[in-house]
Amino acid sequence: MFTPHPIGFISSPYNTKSDIPKGLGAKHDADGVLKILPEFEPGLTDIEGFSHLIVIWEFDRLNGFELLATPPSDNRPHGVFATRSPRRPNPLGLTTVELRRREGIELHVRGVDMLDGTPILDIKPYLSSIPSEKLRRGWLAEAEARQK
Amino acid sequence: MFTPHPIGFISSPYNTKSDIPKGLGAKHDADGVLKILPEFEPGLTDIEGFSHLIVIWEFDRLNGFELLATPPSDNRPHGVFATRSPRRPNPLGLTTVELRRREGIELHVRGVDMLDGTPILDIKPYLSSIPSEKLRRGWLAEAEARQK
Repeated sequence: MFTPHPIGFISSPYNTKSDIPKGLGAKHDADGVLKILPEFEPGLTDIEGFSHLIVIWEFDRLNGFELLATPPSDNRPHGVFATRSPRRPNPLGLTTVELRRREGIELHVRGVDMLDGTPILDIKPYLSSIPSEKLRRGWLAEAEARQK
Repeated sequence: MFTPHPIGFISSPYNTKSDIPKGLGAKHDADGVLKILPEFEPGLTDIEGFSHLIVIWEFDRLNGFELLATPPSDNRPHGVFATRSPRRPNPLGLTTVELRRREGIELHVRGVDMLDGTPILDIKPYLSSIPSEKLRRGWLAEAEARQK
C-alpha cells in the first residue's frame, strides 16, 4: 500500500484528549486552522468556493486498536466500525468543518475536534448530504433516546 | 506515520475506470459488497443499525498526483483539494454508501464508485448531515449552472 505523508497540520485549541468535547450533545464549534505545507498550495485553488470541507487526518498520538469500543456517548460496547473510536485498525480520523476563510496556505475553519498539531492527510470538498429523514443512526439514536 | 493495511476489499461491478459513471449528473447507485477480513469481524458489531456508512479506501491502481486537476464535471482546472480527483498526494478515496444488509463479514451496500478489488482502509457510521441549504458548492455549482 501507499506510504502516508502529511499535507499539513492542524492548529486547534485542544492540547490534550480531555479538552475535546465528547459524548451525547457535545458541540463541535471550535475554530482552528488547517495549515497546509507550501509545496501543496496550488492544490487549494478554488477551495474558497466551498462552505464545508471533509478533512481526513491521522490519530497520531495512539498505538494499537480495539475491535469493540465503548464510546463516550454510550455505556455499551459496539464494533469499532460502528463508532468514531480513535483506536482503529488504520488510525484515520474524519471531520467535516466549515470553511470560514482562506489566507494563502491557511484554511480558517470552524468545527475542529482534533488535537493541536494533528497531521492532515487529505481535504475533500463536501458536495452533498444524505437527507436527515433518510438516516438511521443505530445505537447512537438508542443512547440518545435513553438519555431523554 | 502509520503503515496502512486493508481491513477488507470491495466487490464492485466496475473493472476499469471507464466503467464508473462520472461527470455532472452521474448516478452512483451500483450495488456492491464490502468484504471484511475475518479477523476484523468483531469490529462490525451493531453496524446493521446504521443506514449509511462512510468508506475510506485506497486508489490502488494509480501512481503520482497532480495539484491542479480538471474534473470530468468541468472543463476548467481546480486545486486537487477542491475536487475528488483520484490523483491526490495521499491516494485516499471516500464514498458514502447505503447499507442494505449484513451477512457476517459481508456488507451489502448501494452506491459504490470504486473498482472491483479496491482495498478498504476504514468504515465509519454516517451520523449527521450538513443541511443542503447551508452548503455552497463552488465551481461545481457553477459548472452545473453553465450546463443548464
